[in-house]
Amino acid sequence: MKDLFAKRMSRVPRSFVREILKVTDKPEIISFAGGLPHPDSFPHQEIALAAEHVLTQESREALQYSTTEGYWPLREYIAQRYQNNGLKVHAEEILITNGSQQGLDLTGKVFLDKDDVVLVERPTYLAAIQALGLYEPIFKSIRLQKDGIDTETLKNTLEDSPVKLLYAVPNFQNPTGISYSLQKRREVAKIISENDTVLVEDDPYGEIRFMGDHQPSIKNFLNESVLLGSFSKIISPGIRLGWIVAQEEIMDKLVTAKQASDLHTNYLAQRIIYRYLTEYDVEKQLKKIREMYKRQRDLMIAMIEEYFPSGVQFTEPEGGMFLWVTLPLGRSSMDLFHLAIKEDVAFVPGEAFYANNADKNTLRLNFSNSDEKKIEEGIKRLGKAIEKFYI
Amino acid sequence: MKDLFAKRMSRVPRSFVREILKVTDKPEIISFAGGLPHPDSFPHQEIALAAEHVLTQESREALQYSTTEGYWPLREYIAQRYQNNGLKVHAEEILITNGSQQGLDLTGKVFLDKDDVVLVERPTYLAAIQALGLYEPIFKSIRLQKDGIDTETLKNTLEDSPVKLLYAVPNFQNPTGISYSLQKRREVAKIISENDTVLVEDDPYGEIRFMGDHQPSIKNFLNESVLLGSFSKIISPGIRLGWIVAQEEIMDKLVTAKQASDLHTNYLAQRIIYRYLTEYDVEKQLKKIREMYKRQRDLMIAMIEEYFPSGVQFTEPEGGMFLWVTLPLGRSSMDLFHLAIKEDVAFVPGEAFYANNADKNTLRLNFSNSDEKKIEEGIKRLGKAIEKFYI
Repeated sequence: MKDLFAKRMSRVPRSFVREILKVTDKPEIISFAGGLPHPDSFPHQEIALAAEHVLTQESREALQYSTTEGYWPLREYIAQRYQNNGLKVHAEEILITNGSQQGLDLTGKVFLDKDDVVLVERPTYLAAIQALGLYEPIFKSIRLQKDGIDTETLKNTLEDSPVKLLYAVPNFQNPTGISYSLQKRREVAKIISENDTVLVEDDPYGEIRFMGDHQPSIKNFLNESVLLGSFSKIISPGIRLGWIVAQEEIMDKLVTAKQASDLHTNYLAQRIIYRYLTEYDVEKQLKKIREMYKRQRDLMIAMIEEYFPSGVQFTEPEGGMFLWVTLPLGRSSMDLFHLAIKEDVAFVPGEAFYANNADKNTLRLNFSNSDEKKIEEGIKRLGKAIEKFYI
Repeated sequence: MKDLFAKRMSRVPRSFVREILKVTDKPEIISFAGGLPHPDSFPHQEIALAAEHVLTQESREALQYSTTEGYWPLREYIAQRYQNNGLKVHAEEILITNGSQQGLDLTGKVFLDKDDVVLVERPTYLAAIQALGLYEPIFKSIRLQKDGIDTETLKNTLEDSPVKLLYAVPNFQNPTGISYSLQKRREVAKIISENDTVLVEDDPYGEIRFMGDHQPSIKNFLNESVLLGSFSKIISPGIRLGWIVAQEEIMDKLVTAKQASDLHTNYLAQRIIYRYLTEYDVEKQLKKIREMYKRQRDLMIAMIEEYFPSGVQFTEPEGGMFLWVTLPLGRSSMDLFHLAIKEDVAFVPGEAFYANNADKNTLRLNFSNSDEKKIEEGIKRLGKAIEKFYI
């Protein structure tokens, strides 16, 4: 049997993060390892009412097969929301997906031949490497600076040899929490437009900005790209609804790939979320999440400042769900992980987030999924583990 | 931009069936072209109650991220149902997918390298060609006889040169309605077990048998295979829930591919359908569908016998949703299609269902989606078109 599997399967590691989540499942462990929204943030009552409406008033449609592209009014809603934010998008340019992870899979299907080069940030979102990795590209990575990707290296790399895709998370990146400055966004757009490279702009966290100024999508400066969005972080991940924004020529291929992949996205869920979005107060929901996560982020930073030894660096994200810790050079966060587990606290060692040449002294902390009590206690425990580690 | 798309995209035709559905969308047209369940068959009240329960009692879990494999109690339920039917399946061997179309995509991901040979029935299910086609195999097809695939040719073909997958729909096949005899099932299992080939057994219609004896899955005689199942035809397609049955070694790869593709299947939908399955009367639901579709199938056959000229042949399926019509040799069902549209009736020309060497004198009729009045009137109209066609 072994010989019958496709060669590509040897290229895809099982998610290290998911493996870690299994270790950290014990109730006594305080885990900053996951990437989950806080369940208190789910607007479950409103979704229950929306579901009741759809299943009593629209059940013959909602339970039937539907179009590959997605529920038209939902596509219109998403396009309109972009337009309100100054990005010209038409409903025809929206494809509804099973979370934005599927957007990555479809992008890989549509663009990647074996040995094509994919550029990613360093570090980058692990699941993007998994999704795109199935299409057997060669990954190269470019260091992320405090204000976004290193554009000088990007320019040189693209001029050096062909690059099919650039995968970037410009807002509150997973894992680092870093956001691109406006200047970097413009620079990336300019560099990409001068080369035969497609930008894949992944934006699951853009709506969760709790400080600093809103920044435009890179797509504002570069129409020919793939932009991924998601309801997972702002409404519910279990409902598995994301979308792809792309102009007609790309969309046409994406729809073909989507049709082959699973015909269409859960139609009942699409109708429920549309009802929710149009009948209930989405802005209130966003405000609630932003306030909640800002409190949690502020507390985590305050606790880190109090309990981590000097020499440990960390990012101070203006939104999203993660911050990134860098231990002094030479220290391995994987070693720290084992010490931390003994103290009943968990995180993800940074090496999980590198396509190549991992910085082994880094780690990711999630602040969205833990309430304030756990953040306080968990960071204390982690501080204790780091202290021990230093001796 | 054009040069940037992956080579595989040129291999995948957009679904001809879906293109036809657009033509047949006008309200005056009676369409036997689609492959949709009857909306009267959806247990919408029970699903509404199940959704209410899940969204009020289990919302913190149902709206959160979940495991790639699927909701454990749902996997147990599906395994138990197989066991009740005499097939030994463990819950660990079940992966929940976005409809069984995704099962095909994951199977392609896991097994197919470029230029691997995939055997399909002749004719075969179009969407399987689309899904597997993305992985750039070479399709070969083997004629379907009245009692299943031509096993002599199958044996010779497998002995001739390597074949990676055999894709088969043994129960009430789409498009023909043909089912495999018990003997053919045993023969296929034996032939496959003697070769390095994986059987992909697609069974979306198995529960919709309304006459004749239940036949065991080929998996009963061949454990090392991929078996695809679905709730689309027996509960609701809009809820997009199917599953894959495979033993551990294959499952392990499938889970990796699923994780890369979309992390996990809609968890809210999984919990809703589990609640429905365990709290409401599924057997009553199945009985209702079987009775409804049998009436519709019987009426369609009676009308065909009355209104189609002699020389037109058709299958008499014991279940499922389709029957298959063969015009006299030399006649093109595509030509008939244009005449039929003028009579305000539609079907799918058979050539859509061939991987190669289409029999152009065939066509598919769906009887599940039309009520009896439409079947009566639609077959009359189609008979008229055929009469004209004969002159």
